[in-house]
This record gives sequence, structure tokens and C-alpha cells, in this order.
Amino acid sequence: MTRVKCPGHITGFFEICKNGRDARYTGSRGAGVCIDKGVETDLTVLDNDEVKVDITLNGEDIAAPVTQSVVNQFLEFKKQSYLVLVRHNVEVPMSAGFGASGAGALSTAYALNKELELNMTRNAIATVAHIAEVENQTGLGDVIAQTYGGVEIRLEPGAPGIGRVDQIIPDPTLKVVCVNMGKLETKSILSNPTHQERINRAGKKLIAELLQNATIENFLRLSKKFMEESELLSSELKELLIYVEDLHSIPASMVMLGESLFTFAERAKSDELKDEIQAYSPELKVFTCEIDYIGPRVIEV
Amino acid sequence: MTRVKCPGHITGFFEICKNGRDARYTGSRGAGVCIDKGVETDLTVLDNDEVKVDITLNGEDIAAPVTQSVVNQFLEFKKQSYLVLVRHNVEVPMSAGFGASGAGALSTAYALNKELELNMTRNAIATVAHIAEVENQTGLGDVIAQTYGGVEIRLEPGAPGIGRVDQIIPDPTLKVVCVNMGKLETKSILSNPTHQERINRAGKKLIAELLQNATIENFLRLSKKFMEESELLSSELKELLIYVEDLHSIPASMVMLGESLFTFAERAKSDELKDEIQAYSPELKVFTCEIDYIGPRVIEV
Repeated sequence: MTRVKCPGHITGFFEICKNGRDARYTGSRGAGVCIDKGVETDLTVLDNDEVKVDITLNGEDIAAPVTQSVVNQFLEFKKQSYLVLVRHNVEVPMSAGFGASGAGALSTAYALNKELELNMTRNAIATVAHIAEVENQTGLGDVIAQTYGGVEIRLEPGAPGIGRVDQIIPDPTLKVVCVNMGKLETKSILSNPTHQERINRAGKKLIAELLQNATIENFLRLSKKFMEESELLSSELKELLIYVEDLHSIPASMVMLGESLFTFAERAKSDELKDEIQAYSPELKVFTCEIDYIGPRVIEV
Repeated sequence: MTRVKCPGHITGFFEICKNGRDARYTGSRGAGVCIDKGVETDLTVLDNDEVKVDITLNGEDIAAPVTQSVVNQFLEFKKQSYLVLVRHNVEVPMSAGFGASGAGALSTAYALNKELELNMTRNAIATVAHIAEVENQTGLGDVIAQTYGGVEIRLEPGAPGIGRVDQIIPDPTLKVVCVNMGKLETKSILSNPTHQERINRAGKKLIAELLQNATIENFLRLSKKFMEESELLSSELKELLIYVEDLHSIPASMVMLGESLFTFAERAKSDELKDEIQAYSPELKVFTCEIDYIGPRVIEV
């Protein structure tokens, strides 16, 4: 058994960059933050007469096409049949913009590299996860962001080793505060031409503005600008946003793509802010996280 | 005051890659490991009538040309005079191959970005440290390795954002064990044509071999191959190497460039190995470290 932990990831703003021929070069430019809540995956490979993949998520059976795609790609590297048992433990809300599918794909890829004794490099392993995300339209930039960690500026699209990334250096006093109020399927947005066009019009040029002044405050400001111009904010989420921003001096913005909001708070005040947001409705999932600088890691072999 | 911690770094093998026109493109290909013992720097900037830089290392005044170069580059971004107080606390032996000068440069650069409120990105900050190292001939690949963390394979030379890096994924059970028996100036090796020629002949092709089989065992095997072919091992260090390898099943290799050795050990046995190596001579500096995956971090502002 191999256990791998992978951070979650929040995108603040982005631009879709498609390459029709090669999923490794498809991705996004944009900016976001890796969070220490993500996915922990226990994976066991056993010899078997036929290929069989058994995936659970928080204890329940699930089809998990992204994980399945990662497993299929890895099994092609071997000419043998296996029973692959994948146990995802997800610490963030699903279909909510916190990069759960990317973290599931990356943790599965790291664990399979170890279990099948493939001795691949980090970039080669993470490329398999990136391809699985792109082909399933569940994400475009989560995998490269989660591979490197930190508060990233994605300069050029693509898988790790192809895409280019820079970082913002935040104060160590900051925590991330997250709120989710429902589900939003990434695929439904990414496959809609009207949304695509608005996203790309809004996302262009923001990276240049962020590079000029690489702070958390500017990242939030530009994320809000993107949120407004891309018109992805629902009226319910807009009401919640107004409530959250009234509580606190730092602005909040929409998690791309999810019915979720994020902001940053001083460590000493983050739990208080969390409780204040929770008071809006008991239905909300509110949580605080540390910024994650490590990326995926094997925690048990 | 800003306090920054930066990991140390050990190079196992390398190839010198010079670019006569631009220090940002000069560097090395090779492989190494970041360690959680490095340099912690406290830095304060005060308004002053003239530019004055005051640097101490473990409490003692020091010229520190690499740190001085970093400060000079940063002060050029501002049109004001300052008193800059730099307090380096170095956790590894100096002039011993553990990347102390790179860690000092990076921690100074991160702290100055914060103290001078420059809001530069990580790559821009680290590039200043890379230039300072290259121009002082104290290192070629430490800064990019330390910026990203982990067990790196440096695919292409240069500063962060220019050079390209991949990684080995080690088992979480491994610690790094280090031994130092004296000083060796990087500059004296890097400026010697005979050494340069031997290093580059030995260092070429090893990266391709490591990418094929990206394990800690192969990294150590290729480092030993480099050590033998580059002829940098002194007779005293060779005797110590034989002693260390007799204690333990995993091979050890020379730290490039230092009168030092490194190896990996299972967590549970690393302290025992440390004590066994120390028994060789009370003069040796022997220490164990965790692999560092985080890179430089602001720990107090």
C-alpha cells in the first residue's frame, strides 16, 4: 500500500488555452493558491488474472473517470494484469472548485508510480494526471499548480515540465478562508462557447498586472475583476459575497469554477471569520486552510 | 524586521554551463537534494543618510560578498539610501558544499523584497540571488535547486524561470546523513580549466541515465560515478568514504563541492549511523537532515 497526500487548489482567474493535438500543451494561464486540505489516497496493487479497478471516495464506491484514466495510462506502461484498489479520502467539498479531481488524479499517479515500481520523475508522473484532467474536462491548471504548490502565477499553459509557473510570496500570517454553497460542474462551463469567450476576454492581461505587483491583495483584486467580467457569479453567491466582504476588510472572490468563495485572513482572526460566515446559513461549508508549499507527497509506503 | 529561512543544498553531480553574456543563463545541469538545515536570515532596513550594509554570520562581522551583491542589486531598484542590517544564522558547515552561500543569498533576497515592499515574484527575487552566486563563483545550481526544493534533476541551466528542473520522488522514510571534514573553496575549482574539463566530461550523459530510473539509489550510483571520473576526491576523504560505506548498505558520495560526504538512511537508523560515523574522528561535523520540499519561506514579518 502507498499513501499519498495532495493539496487542493483554488483558481482566482484564468484563460483557457487549448491545443487540439496534444493534451500536454492544453491548459490555462492564470493565478491561484494551493491549500493544505485536499485528497489523501491509499492505493494497493495486487496481481490478478484480469485488469480490475476498484475506487472508493470517502468509503463509497464511485466511477471516478479521472482516477480511472490515470490508472489506465499507468497500466499501459506494464504488460501485466492487476487488481488496483484506490481509496480516496477527500477533505474539501466536491464539484466546488477546490481541485479535488486534480488532487485525486495526482495522488493516484504518485501512488501508482511507487506501487508499480516505475521510478518515473515528478514531471512524467504529473503529466499523466494533467492529461486525465484535460481529457475529462474537469480542470486545466489545477495539476501543474498542485504539483509545485504555493500561490502560483501560471505564465504558460500545459503539464508540469511544459507549462511555466511563477509565484507570489505571501506573508506567513495569512490563512485561506473558503465557503461553499453548492455544486457547479466544471465541464458545463468549459464546454460552453459563450462562457469560454467571456472567460478568455476577462482573463487576458490580468497576469501582466499581477506580475507588476505580486501581492495577495492584488491577486484578490484581479480575481474580483475577472469574476465580474466573466459573469460566472450566480445571484445566490453574489448575496453571500456581499455578506462576507461586509465582515472583513479584505475583499473575497469566487472560486473558479465552483459555487464557492475564498478570501485571506490573518491567522489570529481566521477562526472568528469562519464562525461569522457560518452564521449566514447552517447549509454552508466553511473552512480555513494553510497555504500549501509542498505539493503531492508520499506519506506512507 | 523580516526573517526568512532557506534550505541548504547538496549537489551529487553536475556539468558547468557558462553563458558569457548573461549570468541569468549561466548555471549547471545536474542533480542534488535540498536539506532542511540551511540559513535563517533576519534583515532590517532603516532610513539612513548614506547606504550602509552591516552583515553578521552567526554573530560575527563578515564581508560576505554574495550577500553584499544581493543587497546592492536590490538597492538599485530604489532611489533612496538605507542602513541594511543582515543577520545570517547558518546551520550547516561553511565552505563545505551544503549551499550556505546560495541560502544566504536567497534568504537575503526574499527579506529585502519584503522590507523594501517591492512585491516582486519569486522568480524575479531568486534571479537576483542566482546572479550574485554566479558573479562571485560561489555556485552555479544551488539557487534554482533551493528555490524549488526537493531532490532535483536540473535539466537546463539558469536562474529560476529560465533553468528547467524535474524531481525524484523519494520514500518518506529516508533522511540525509552528512559529514564534513574541512573546507574547499568552490571558486578554486570552478575557475580551474583542468577541473572544469574533467567535471564536464564526467557530468554529461548522467542526467539522461537518471531520468530513465529516477530513484535515490540511482542518484547515489551516478553521483559516485561522477566523483570517480571528476577526480575531485582527496585521499583523506576517500578513506572516510570507505569507512562510511562499510557501516551501511547504501553507498555514500562526495558533496560537490566540499570536503564532505552524503548518503541516505532509513529514518529509524539515521541517528545510529550518525554516531557510528562520528566515531571515526571527533573532528568531523556529522549531522542528519530531512529532505526540504518547501524552499525559501518568510517565517516572520
